[in-house]
Amino acid sequence: MAVSEAIKAFISSNRTVSTSILDASTVIAVSLFVTLLCASIVIGHLIEENRWANESITALFLGLASGGVVLLVNGGRSSQFLVFSEELFFIYVLPPIIFNAGFQVKKKQFFKNFSIILMFGVFGTLISFILISIGAYFLFKKIGLTSFGIKEYLAIGAILSATDSVCTLQVLSQDETPFLYSAVFGEGVVNDATSIVLYNAVQSLNVSDADVFTALKLLGTFLYLFFTSTALGIAVGLLSAYGIKTLYFGRHSTDREVAIMLLLAYLSYMIAELLSLSGILTIFFCGIVMSHYTWHNVTESSRITTKHAFATISFIAETFIFLYVGMDALDVDRWESTSSSAGTSIAVSSSMFALVLIGRAAFVYPLTSIYNCTKRRESDKITFRRQFIIWWAGLMRGAVTIALSYNEFSSSSSSDETSSHEHALMVTSTITVVLFSTVVFGSMTKPLIEKVLPRQGKTSISDADQFTSLEDLRLLFLEDGDPNNNNEGGSNQQPPPPKRSSLRLLITNTSSTVHYFWRKFDDRFMRPVFGGRGFVPFVPGSPTGAQDQTSSPSTAQI
Amino acid sequence: MAVSEAIKAFISSNRTVSTSILDASTVIAVSLFVTLLCASIVIGHLIEENRWANESITALFLGLASGGVVLLVNGGRSSQFLVFSEELFFIYVLPPIIFNAGFQVKKKQFFKNFSIILMFGVFGTLISFILISIGAYFLFKKIGLTSFGIKEYLAIGAILSATDSVCTLQVLSQDETPFLYSAVFGEGVVNDATSIVLYNAVQSLNVSDADVFTALKLLGTFLYLFFTSTALGIAVGLLSAYGIKTLYFGRHSTDREVAIMLLLAYLSYMIAELLSLSGILTIFFCGIVMSHYTWHNVTESSRITTKHAFATISFIAETFIFLYVGMDALDVDRWESTSSSAGTSIAVSSSMFALVLIGRAAFVYPLTSIYNCTKRRESDKITFRRQFIIWWAGLMRGAVTIALSYNEFSSSSSSDETSSHEHALMVTSTITVVLFSTVVFGSMTKPLIEKVLPRQGKTSISDADQFTSLEDLRLLFLEDGDPNNNNEGGSNQQPPPPKRSSLRLLITNTSSTVHYFWRKFDDRFMRPVFGGRGFVPFVPGSPTGAQDQTSSPSTAQI
Repeated sequence: MAVSEAIKAFISSNRTVSTSILDASTVIAVSLFVTLLCASIVIGHLIEENRWANESITALFLGLASGGVVLLVNGGRSSQFLVFSEELFFIYVLPPIIFNAGFQVKKKQFFKNFSIILMFGVFGTLISFILISIGAYFLFKKIGLTSFGIKEYLAIGAILSATDSVCTLQVLSQDETPFLYSAVFGEGVVNDATSIVLYNAVQSLNVSDADVFTALKLLGTFLYLFFTSTALGIAVGLLSAYGIKTLYFGRHSTDREVAIMLLLAYLSYMIAELLSLSGILTIFFCGIVMSHYTWHNVTESSRITTKHAFATISFIAETFIFLYVGMDALDVDRWESTSSSAGTSIAVSSSMFALVLIGRAAFVYPLTSIYNCTKRRESDKITFRRQFIIWWAGLMRGAVTIALSYNEFSSSSSSDETSSHEHALMVTSTITVVLFSTVVFGSMTKPLIEKVLPRQGKTSISDADQFTSLEDLRLLFLEDGDPNNNNEGGSNQQPPPPKRSSLRLLITNTSSTVHYFWRKFDDRFMRPVFGGRGFVPFVPGSPTGAQDQTSSPSTAQI
Repeated sequence: MAVSEAIKAFISSNRTVSTSILDASTVIAVSLFVTLLCASIVIGHLIEENRWANESITALFLGLASGGVVLLVNGGRSSQFLVFSEELFFIYVLPPIIFNAGFQVKKKQFFKNFSIILMFGVFGTLISFILISIGAYFLFKKIGLTSFGIKEYLAIGAILSATDSVCTLQVLSQDETPFLYSAVFGEGVVNDATSIVLYNAVQSLNVSDADVFTALKLLGTFLYLFFTSTALGIAVGLLSAYGIKTLYFGRHSTDREVAIMLLLAYLSYMIAELLSLSGILTIFFCGIVMSHYTWHNVTESSRITTKHAFATISFIAETFIFLYVGMDALDVDRWESTSSSAGTSIAVSSSMFALVLIGRAAFVYPLTSIYNCTKRRESDKITFRRQFIIWWAGLMRGAVTIALSYNEFSSSSSSDETSSHEHALMVTSTITVVLFSTVVFGSMTKPLIEKVLPRQGKTSISDADQFTSLEDLRLLFLEDGDPNNNNEGGSNQQPPPPKRSSLRLLITNTSSTVHYFWRKFDDRFMRPVFGGRGFVPFVPGSPTGAQDQTSSPSTAQI
């Protein structure tokens, strides 16, 4: 205890004698977080060869450990910087992560799987929401919780249906398992819009007059939210492409270009939040449009800088979230205010966790079966092993769940003691589920994928032929081609199909057809206005960096 | 007024019906600032050809304009986001600016002028502090202010002696006027340490027992602060170089390298603040060490990314400060609480301004004369025109002044009405001085330099020969040379001296001699441990980017 006493004395001495004009507690909190971030990165780097661990889990454990130290130093009272702030999370930490995901996503793969992403993200989340709400209603009654109404149970359903897209990014590899990555991560992005709509709908719900119109209204709200959010993201992305192409920032400064891209992307998120749209959807599509048009309009240095700087910011933000969640879990005040027995806590947490498992299974298997029915080719269908991985990889719950749970249960103004205890219990149980799911699924997913889908990444070279279809052949003849298309679209889940006749290919492969017409439209109408690949305003014949000039930002993942 | 009513209605409607879980006022404030930042950058880009304007002044006026709109919308009450936050400024906005300045500074030029920088930064600031304090004591009494004691007057002296290093960065060009840039900007960095020591010393001063020991103690504190802050910055910089070289982050990820550099730099600032040192000095030297060692140990992509990403962040932060100061100036509550006549306000502001002018003149001319006496060669002396520019370019007062003034006069707990009015008057007068000096000196410095020192930048090619002295010749033979050294050290204030014999050159040019031994030390002891130029761990023969591999980050200024 001597060390903790010394640290305590040191901190309090600094608080009183500090001649700095800054508030010492803020400085200490920031220093602590930055130190822990550095430690997470270094440790994460050192144990990278270990397939059970990754930076998220390292950060989570470091957060838990340092939260423990802070508690010891403070003598069991939680300190100010252990408290989770929704504002910090939603305004500063989440946007760069989602933007970078859109910026670096393999667009072709994403849009190829768009139907399954929408299906999972919308109907899947809805099924999971209904099941979890009903299940919680019956299970929690049995455990002995009494104070919740229908509204609270619906909120629990919405909160536990929000999958964590951040951890997915770290656990699944875009290069090794592109189909799984785009399906599970894409689902996570759409899922966010759905759960926020559901959560907000529940908030404004009048339980008495719930009828079929409410459901219709909900659907209408979702469609409105989905399309306006997407449109806003695309609009801001196009604005940045047009602005940078027209104003020609590169003439004077790379920094201006990078600053404008960064600021406009962030602005799209903020405007979406201001208009009560889904900022996550908006900034995700803004990232996609920026990587398709804007990124090609800037100088070579700006391209390298944005590619890595956005990835770095996102990487820091991700690590920060896990640190934060880890530290937040040790907020003793909250644990004490539940005043439940350990038995009740465990019962609630495990029923929540069971509901999450069942709720996801209940839509992954049926929806993939429906998807498989629409596919004629055996190679296009989703195998059972793949279904299992989709189910497994989407089980993680993360910071969005914690933030929503706080919003619902933390600021309980009810004077009823039972009610406030049960509200606190909900928050601690949610944190337990988040911690447990992140650690278990985060550490086991990589080994599991290796076991269930052996040598997944090794086939990527032969798979690259898959897209040498009509579309690519035409593109090869019609324009000066794009050497990266083959690799970019290379998906690994199917053995390469035998070459077929042009017409048959066109009919069989609908997504290729859509893509072909999109490319024609893009080349004829969009690129002349907004730039994009092939638009080379700066020293066209420059030999250096020719490799980077043609590749898309998605080739450089973390 | 219809538009303002509409905006008001829009804002308040969003505040009430917002279904977002975020606080609407935060979202509005962030959106507004991001929009204004974008506008400043675009407008700054468009008017760049205009030599009277720059991004700082654009941002300042945009801030004033939008502050005005906010006031109109709020019906004359200040809104929450108009209030200057010292924490925001010192913790988040200032560090990246100073770090980038250190990272991109031309090291040779900086160390060559180190003696004059120290002289100006320490003795200059001290002279200015004494003169302004005494002047304020007599002038303010005459104007009719009664409530201040000696302590307040000394605080005013410290506050008004803090020059603004941020605006200097924007107004002076490192490439066109390297001597002026390194002298005035370097002075600004050292000045910060001095004014903070002075300010803190004044805070803890017991006026009754002020004697010669107090002065000695003050000097001791300054020396302690200067050396520990510098040592801390160097230590953290070396740690980053050693860590990145040893751990070999580049093997897996460019993002980790960039993240570690960013986080360690920030950590150095935070540790310095935690230990009540000068964070600005620390992060400045950390930046210098990082650009000398760490930057050469990372991958090619990391080099390009850090060079531009750090510059971009700094650029955004600089623009933000001016926006913020502009908006802050319109905090009506503060203006109202002065309850002084316009005459008194103008009298106080103009006496402050006059004291700033005199205080700076009182040390620039004497100190440069002393400096000139130590130089035997006519070409090494500082001409009168150059003295004038040094005086002029350091007259700007900026955000540090505002922050210190707030700290001193804003949280006045005195119940005396006259006293609290006069405290408020000090804050508004400081803001007036800052605004006026930034606009006047910021817009007039560039044209003035062109007029006073005609065709300054055009001689840089011939000046590059200046350093083809013994030292460089030896370096050329001893090692595989550094093609950038010549340009990097190329200073423009002197005509190229005739080539002399080796020994004579060695004696005449002391700073070159020091530099020569430093290089030998660096090559033999430092570089084997910490890497640095010539340490190429990644694909040594790679033809792409060979140009960037040899250049230092300082070649890419905004």
